[in-house]
Amino acid sequence: MVPNINPPDDEYLTELRREFHRHPEPAWREFWTTARIVDELEQTDVDEIHVGPDAIDPAERLGVPDEAELSYWFEQARESTDRPDVLEKLQGGTTGVVAVVEKGDGPTVGLRVDIDALPIEESTGESHLPATEGFRSEHDGAMHACGHDSHVAFGLGTLETILESEFEGTFKVFFQPAEEVLGGGKPMAAGPHIDDVDYLLGVHVGLDHPTGEVVAGIDEALAFSKLGVEFEGESAHAGLAPNQGRNAVQALVTAAGNLYGIPRHGDGSTRVNVGNLRSENASNVVADRASADAEVRGETTALMEYMRDASVRVLNSAAEMHDCSVETSIKGQAPREDCDEEVVDLVADLAENHTDAVSSVVRRGTLGASEDFTHLLQAVKANGGAGTFVGIGTDHPSGHHTPTFDVDEDSLSIGVAVLSSAALELLA
Amino acid sequence: MVPNINPPDDEYLTELRREFHRHPEPAWREFWTTARIVDELEQTDVDEIHVGPDAIDPAERLGVPDEAELSYWFEQARESTDRPDVLEKLQGGTTGVVAVVEKGDGPTVGLRVDIDALPIEESTGESHLPATEGFRSEHDGAMHACGHDSHVAFGLGTLETILESEFEGTFKVFFQPAEEVLGGGKPMAAGPHIDDVDYLLGVHVGLDHPTGEVVAGIDEALAFSKLGVEFEGESAHAGLAPNQGRNAVQALVTAAGNLYGIPRHGDGSTRVNVGNLRSENASNVVADRASADAEVRGETTALMEYMRDASVRVLNSAAEMHDCSVETSIKGQAPREDCDEEVVDLVADLAENHTDAVSSVVRRGTLGASEDFTHLLQAVKANGGAGTFVGIGTDHPSGHHTPTFDVDEDSLSIGVAVLSSAALELLA
Amino acid sequence: MVPNINPPDDEYLTELRREFHRHPEPAWREFWTTARIVDELEQTDVDEIHVGPDAIDPAERLGVPDEAELSYWFEQARESTDRPDVLEKLQGGTTGVVAVVEKGDGPTVGLRVDIDALPIEESTGESHLPATEGFRSEHDGAMHACGHDSHVAFGLGTLETILESEFEGTFKVFFQPAEEVLGGGKPMAAGPHIDDVDYLLGVHVGLDHPTGEVVAGIDEALAFSKLGVEFEGESAHAGLAPNQGRNAVQALVTAAGNLYGIPRHGDGSTRVNVGNLRSENASNVVADRASADAEVRGETTALMEYMRDASVRVLNSAAEMHDCSVETSIKGQAPREDCDEEVVDLVADLAENHTDAVSSVVRRGTLGASEDFTHLLQAVKANGGAGTFVGIGTDHPSGHHTPTFDVDEDSLSIGVAVLSSAALELLA
Amino acid sequence: MVPNINPPDDEYLTELRREFHRHPEPAWREFWTTARIVDELEQTDVDEIHVGPDAIDPAERLGVPDEAELSYWFEQARESTDRPDVLEKLQGGTTGVVAVVEKGDGPTVGLRVDIDALPIEESTGESHLPATEGFRSEHDGAMHACGHDSHVAFGLGTLETILESEFEGTFKVFFQPAEEVLGGGKPMAAGPHIDDVDYLLGVHVGLDHPTGEVVAGIDEALAFSKLGVEFEGESAHAGLAPNQGRNAVQALVTAAGNLYGIPRHGDGSTRVNVGNLRSENASNVVADRASADAEVRGETTALMEYMRDASVRVLNSAAEMHDCSVETSIKGQAPREDCDEEVVDLVADLAENHTDAVSSVVRRGTLGASEDFTHLLQAVKANGGAGTFVGIGTDHPSGHHTPTFDVDEDSLSIGVAVLSSAALELLA
Repeated sequence: MVPNINPPDDEYLTELRREFHRHPEPAWREFWTTARIVDELEQTDVDEIHVGPDAIDPAERLGVPDEAELSYWFEQARESTDRPDVLEKLQGGTTGVVAVVEKGDGPTVGLRVDIDALPIEESTGESHLPATEGFRSEHDGAMHACGHDSHVAFGLGTLETILESEFEGTFKVFFQPAEEVLGGGKPMAAGPHIDDVDYLLGVHVGLDHPTGEVVAGIDEALAFSKLGVEFEGESAHAGLAPNQGRNAVQALVTAAGNLYGIPRHGDGSTRVNVGNLRSENASNVVADRASADAEVRGETTALMEYMRDASVRVLNSAAEMHDCSVETSIKGQAPREDCDEEVVDLVADLAENHTDAVSSVVRRGTLGASEDFTHLLQAVKANGGAGTFVGIGTDHPSGHHTPTFDVDEDSLSIGVAVLSSAALELLA
Repeated sequence: MVPNINPPDDEYLTELRREFHRHPEPAWREFWTTARIVDELEQTDVDEIHVGPDAIDPAERLGVPDEAELSYWFEQARESTDRPDVLEKLQGGTTGVVAVVEKGDGPTVGLRVDIDALPIEESTGESHLPATEGFRSEHDGAMHACGHDSHVAFGLGTLETILESEFEGTFKVFFQPAEEVLGGGKPMAAGPHIDDVDYLLGVHVGLDHPTGEVVAGIDEALAFSKLGVEFEGESAHAGLAPNQGRNAVQALVTAAGNLYGIPRHGDGSTRVNVGNLRSENASNVVADRASADAEVRGETTALMEYMRDASVRVLNSAAEMHDCSVETSIKGQAPREDCDEEVVDLVADLAENHTDAVSSVVRRGTLGASEDFTHLLQAVKANGGAGTFVGIGTDHPSGHHTPTFDVDEDSLSIGVAVLSSAALELLA
Repeated sequence: MVPNINPPDDEYLTELRREFHRHPEPAWREFWTTARIVDELEQTDVDEIHVGPDAIDPAERLGVPDEAELSYWFEQARESTDRPDVLEKLQGGTTGVVAVVEKGDGPTVGLRVDIDALPIEESTGESHLPATEGFRSEHDGAMHACGHDSHVAFGLGTLETILESEFEGTFKVFFQPAEEVLGGGKPMAAGPHIDDVDYLLGVHVGLDHPTGEVVAGIDEALAFSKLGVEFEGESAHAGLAPNQGRNAVQALVTAAGNLYGIPRHGDGSTRVNVGNLRSENASNVVADRASADAEVRGETTALMEYMRDASVRVLNSAAEMHDCSVETSIKGQAPREDCDEEVVDLVADLAENHTDAVSSVVRRGTLGASEDFTHLLQAVKANGGAGTFVGIGTDHPSGHHTPTFDVDEDSLSIGVAVLSSAALELLA
Repeated sequence: MVPNINPPDDEYLTELRREFHRHPEPAWREFWTTARIVDELEQTDVDEIHVGPDAIDPAERLGVPDEAELSYWFEQARESTDRPDVLEKLQGGTTGVVAVVEKGDGPTVGLRVDIDALPIEESTGESHLPATEGFRSEHDGAMHACGHDSHVAFGLGTLETILESEFEGTFKVFFQPAEEVLGGGKPMAAGPHIDDVDYLLGVHVGLDHPTGEVVAGIDEALAFSKLGVEFEGESAHAGLAPNQGRNAVQALVTAAGNLYGIPRHGDGSTRVNVGNLRSENASNVVADRASADAEVRGETTALMEYMRDASVRVLNSAAEMHDCSVETSIKGQAPREDCDEEVVDLVADLAENHTDAVSSVVRRGTLGASEDFTHLLQAVKANGGAGTFVGIGTDHPSGHHTPTFDVDEDSLSIGVAVLSSAALELLA
């Protein structure tokens, strides 16, 4: 049986989503976004709002951009928000919010939505609705190209629905930054609000499911780790005395070649890739610096760790081979954690009863890529809790992470209905 | 016996050098520089001034930057010159000038000076004279850090000295662009003004020789070739379907590793180096593009060609190995060509007689690095002519191509004296 | 219900197995083995015996050793057999036998057993039964270390059991050579005896299953291909003129490094390995020859082919990169082919009823390694037939392919009972 | 003026050379050779004969073959010599002899001749004189293909000439083993007989100089070092669990690729080469062992050491990269050491006076390859002595180290004449 719910109307959700769409901010730069969420939350009866360092553990952040980049976006946000008081707390890139509703004794249910955008230039094409309807990105080179604007709407819409409902227990919404770099899941899981969660819901829009389709549990995200790599050697004139150099390019190319050669594993699938290669020295100088990002994945967390440990060994010895040094830092990470049968079934059963909006239900889907929701799910399960990662189908005209990505706004209310029904069922 | 000469005074040379120092323009972007040289030449009795496409063969240019870069510098020049008429001829990066003085029958003597600057940010330090004396670079990120500003002064000063002298014959000054990328020598040698030159003088300031020392012939420049390399593959999601990619990073790193492994040659020294590495794809995407510059050198032109041919083979097969394609273009090149005994001796003898200014003479020096003066010298020798590359010592506080490089301006008049004496002696 | 069978007694099977154990012959050298099988078959009422080129398609053989090696083993066999007439047919390494029993109309059932040994020196240890009981290998450096001696006993014992039974149909035993190099399955599947087979049984002893355990279907053998690789370049003195060489070692090491780096595949597991490396040139000579074996595997035949095609591309371009040539030949190959439910169930049900000898039944097992039984199974399935690969447990004191491998001879009669029951059930 | 000498007759020298030619023994296996030299020496009035461990420092030997190989050759020698007493001293491969003649006070002059053969199968061709004249190698697969048989004749012939002459001083002949692997020079230089040598002569026949030509000083041997390399990892099934292996082949190929990439040196020529590659594991097993020889050279000893140190770093880090270990051992080594002007001139002047036999004299030649005579010369020079490496031309029908190499026996007496004249002149 579907709980009795009273969600916000479609127009509110659509406007909300469009407003966030106009203000895309990439990982750890969600300054305006965080401030706007807080502003909206303050207009509700929510019991607690935890912002920035009160929502996440800043020390656990991964993939934080450099000072200049943070400052640039901070200034952009300052110019377009009227909540400098909130911004203040986010300085240095400690973004994110946790909102809490408490109504007596009962279980604690969490909903995690991610809020960051991508470094992609949004289309201006005539068939791209955000462009023709006037809510295209206001930040050149940044775009909500993965639907996290809808996720914010899901989060706020669900919270408001819950606030209007009867239940016993606690409901929390985790507005998580930096999912796209798999850098925000860990600090949010390390923050102070996850430990008492009994049931956790995550959500993603689209993923090639059409409007009206709901996926009750999305599994098999590959465990993931991304290493930032900086080789340092010594420069020398390539004609006069190449021997006086310590060649960071040689170290990097030896490392890269051997990273791809890390042995396959008998226990399951692994991945490795090298990107973002850079060495700026002109060719007449033996390079003293060379950098790249290397990422590894595994079908299980252990397989990812096997790849990561082997990668570190390859990187260190490649540096040593060419008399260089290397600094490696983890720029993003996510374990493998699958959904729990009981919660998946609950969501599936509920969804199947939303016959007005939900046309089809997929009980189990697979992701193939990576998601740092698994950090939060892992923390919940470690405490005996359970959870699922729900897919809300939406007709999208082009693939995720492309300049013409868009969502079908009809799916906004479906998401809110499914998520708030599920939360209430779990709270009851 | 030293010819009787009447060079411009020191102050003129110093001011001239400082004006050019303030306006450093890198290879093929010497718009202001060319215009200013023309302007100065027009104030003399020089017989012919050939500008841009009339001075060089544009089709033979190597290492020309892209349109955006050329436009940027062209606009900068437009704002700071009052010779838009000259600029007009240089559009698209056809810089350079040849000036000709004709006085009756006699041999033709050429002087080549290079005019380009480097992409180096000039020091603002208190011990850096250009900074404290107010003639530091006016272009952020560009600097005359190899003394080509002095070379322009040598060229103009020598020309003016020759104009004041008695002789029979023809004197030409080749103001050559794009030496730093070894990209201007070839088009200037392919231009219409080199073929009748009987004697060619080249000149470089500094090179660790102190003020007062003159090197009559600098030899053993390594033959040089620089390949611009662009690998193109196909992108794919590194987690979902790495097999669907064609990995340009794998092609590049295999190529780079193997370039360094091209066998040493029994006939003499060779060099190889890879720099300017770049692949911008994020690490979660199999890279569809990766680029670098690879340069090779040889003790002889044949050795350089051995390395270049082997490099091309390595690059092509590395692309093929990873199912990618590769474009290689020659971005700079210079053959090995040594100085001629007779001209070296003449310069040495003359220099030894300048006892007031010249304190020591080195008959033969070696370069070790590369210089595209050899293109012009090769052309002259092919026609039965002869030449030398003269070093004019100068106390320089730090190495060439460093942010605090500077010349001792006392060396300006020494250079003009040595070069004009030698030219007149050869003309006589 | 278990068919009524009358198998040969245990002593016969044990003596047979020990006799073959004493005469281990590696792939395509099973001369004595083939002759002895023929000899034994001729003592039965079998209807047809097809030997060598009449049993297999010689042109499809993979991994055949060189002439010298074949001659050596052929001579060994000649000295220890009294069937020179059979040997005659096997010259050049066309080993193998197919035996046929025909009894009226009915289905055709095949049993494939492999007969080759391994290049392993058998233990002389006191705890190694074949050594203490006097049936240790009579060939230095060769050993039945994978139990194929038992497989021959299974084949002959099952055939004799069938001959004693009532049924309508045709029963064939495929005594297949060269399984250890995955080189005999293809020519046997391409031979004239597989096409009319309706049901095919394969069998393997051991595989870490104890005596008394039967595995009704072993699946998930990885598809496999092994490439023999020979690089040819040109030698030169490494001190005087390394440039005059074309370095086969550089080609090989570049190839090997990049083979390991062939991208993982999104559709499933792949494998790659390089072994048997050799370049005999002394280090003062640039190597003109270098060779290796490279093998690839895939969870499916398509995945193996992806790896094989990429390997060939890597090998060819590595040769080209170092101006060498390369010859690659397929030395072994096997597709992925899984067992059929119906036959697996039939075997499992029968085995469960052999309660005297069979203590436990595993319905489905997995192999993980590779087997060229899949070639025969693929051929049978292509014609609408079905089959399974049966495991007969045996207590083995050490792992397969080790010098102290041995089988528990109690498992011989279990194998004959299970296989002949299944064959009769399928024939009925 | 040429000293008055009385050398042995041509026939003696020819027979001697042919006897040694029939008994070629490779490095550290010169058992018969050493015994035969001792035997011959004992028939003269030589004052001291130091054999094996008394001639060299056994601990400094490089490139000693394994026990089995030594035993094989030791047994061969035992069967063909009648001097078991000498053989006794050579057990374990401590070959070589030093013979000393003392005649009162005066300088000490040394002559070094090398005595080892090569692992080359000698030609049986009709145009190969040793074959047609019956003195072809009696050891299959071994041959005096570099003329060291002639060197032994030079050594014995010169010694006998000196014994017949008047002089004051000491004359020593160093019959050095293991030159072909550059393994015997070091232990002979570390032995007890070099320290008092004032003048050292070395000699080589042929080297593309015709009969009658003498080279007074051969220089520019490249400094040399040869590293034996053994990687050890851990084997694993390449299909089931490649991750459980530690892949020695991956370590080797990464090392080899990077060895070739050790940066060229601004100070002069370097060389690197990898040969003798081997990994015997079949391709279905991750290799637990892989080995190779890597050799480096340099125009100077310092350049060789630069290469050697870089090689060791590459080898160690390649092992570490693939979680393997590596053992490296120096299997041969020679410094760069050039001839001394004064001794070269003395030899040249003498040779020019042998107008009967010597038709032309080259004062200075170059080697290009490597020679471990430099170890002895270095030791002599360290003590204030001087020396030269003399070339005795000989018409040779094919190159050194080929199966049809042979010497013109007319050059034997020329060598003895030049060397004994020079020795006497230095002794006088």
